[in-house]
Amino acid sequence: MSTPHATLVFMRHGESEWNVANKFTGWHDVDLSSKGIMEAKIAGGLFKQEGLAFDICYTSYLKRAIKTLHLALEEADQMYAPVVKSWRLNERMYGALTGLDKKETVVKHGAEQVQVWRRSFDIPPPPLTKDSEYFPGNERKYKDLKESEVPLTECLKDTVERVLPFWESDIVPALKEGKTVLVAAHGNSMRAILKHLEGISEEVIPGLEIPTGTPLVYKLDKDLKPMPQEGCFEPLTMGRYLGDAATVQAAAEAVKNQTKV
Amino acid sequence: MSTPHATLVFMRHGESEWNVANKFTGWHDVDLSSKGIMEAKIAGGLFKQEGLAFDICYTSYLKRAIKTLHLALEEADQMYAPVVKSWRLNERMYGALTGLDKKETVVKHGAEQVQVWRRSFDIPPPPLTKDSEYFPGNERKYKDLKESEVPLTECLKDTVERVLPFWESDIVPALKEGKTVLVAAHGNSMRAILKHLEGISEEVIPGLEIPTGTPLVYKLDKDLKPMPQEGCFEPLTMGRYLGDAATVQAAAEAVKNQTKV
Repeated sequence: MSTPHATLVFMRHGESEWNVANKFTGWHDVDLSSKGIMEAKIAGGLFKQEGLAFDICYTSYLKRAIKTLHLALEEADQMYAPVVKSWRLNERMYGALTGLDKKETVVKHGAEQVQVWRRSFDIPPPPLTKDSEYFPGNERKYKDLKESEVPLTECLKDTVERVLPFWESDIVPALKEGKTVLVAAHGNSMRAILKHLEGISEEVIPGLEIPTGTPLVYKLDKDLKPMPQEGCFEPLTMGRYLGDAATVQAAAEAVKNQTKV
Repeated sequence: MSTPHATLVFMRHGESEWNVANKFTGWHDVDLSSKGIMEAKIAGGLFKQEGLAFDICYTSYLKRAIKTLHLALEEADQMYAPVVKSWRLNERMYGALTGLDKKETVVKHGAEQVQVWRRSFDIPPPPLTKDSEYFPGNERKYKDLKESEVPLTECLKDTVERVLPFWESDIVPALKEGKTVLVAAHGNSMRAILKHLEGISEEVIPGLEIPTGTPLVYKLDKDLKPMPQEGCFEPLTMGRYLGDAATVQAAAEAVKNQTKV
């Protein structure tokens, strides 16, 4: 097998306080839970164990991803690594579902409707109103966004369209230089890139469950095509999770069960 | 009084494990002490209280400064703020003194000699040898430096000459744009910039004691000249420490007493 040109590692943030509370979070800026802090440190330990040394790291504007990154880099003794933050790597904006309990939403709107909002590719939940406490347009951290860039709701398709310009403008050039890149992000901003990278269909990508705090490693060739590796799980045929495989699958199942009433 | 064009805030890292152990640290990458962690959080609280919202932050490659920055930004709810790291903001390289206990060094070399090494402007301590455990040239984080850029020892003059190119290339342009800038650094990389900013003499600057974890605020005019503020302490006539004045002075005294046998 030829030598990889670049290495791309993804890491979904560790468990957040609203993962615990089972609420739709989206752009709301909640903190990590104590389990999430532990997951981030474990991820950093896995970086070290795997000999991963990052040339550049990317993360969102949301503290659950930023803190996961900081804690993992600290554990891996790589705090000096450059970090670029972008709102384009934020979680999908969940619109009017933001702040609602996932099971209560199922009871209220029916499992089928909630499944459509969570797992269809192109049907967004109802939008936020601008007087909602969850409307991001008044927050200082989004002050440089155009009004049209501040979402009121998003389907996964919208998230893909918002994430990919950053993938192209920032991450692709780093990978072309042969860098080892870490992306510390969210379930849906990761789905957006993974769809593109692995060529996953619109039907399959919404159902891809990504465990929290678990590094996912890609080896890329000169054309940034993923190279085959041992130990991949469908539907990710080219990406390899670090850590214990059973733990990884159990974590993915836990995400899947969040709306089971 | 006219309105400031830009705001520049300095923050020396919180107390480190080697501040506690009373050792010369320099480029050695030690962690914060538990007191240092607390100091960083208090600094973040002061940012919030003062209404400081940072457009960009600069720090060194050393974790005691990076962690102080991360913890303060978290406390101030500004984790999304962009952060640029540079080796040029590192602490002064203490050469062969690195890792030595400060009081033992005084006993061995005499108070006068140690005072010369610590507080003269242009007399460096003896250099590190390249086989020293403290030689930074083999560390991955300095892999992009030219051999001539990796110091074996530094006097404060050397530190000034290493820090100012970054001040000019990165910090000055941000200030010219009217940004609110945070520099989370070290006693001597701060002295380097403060000497330049306040026009402090070579005789006075080595003796400037800077308390750990205490934000120091400058208001700058369009020419980046510091504007007068209330509540400054000599020899800083233009910079204002945030927090309780008595605490600030006591902290500076504590630094001064480190080599008293």
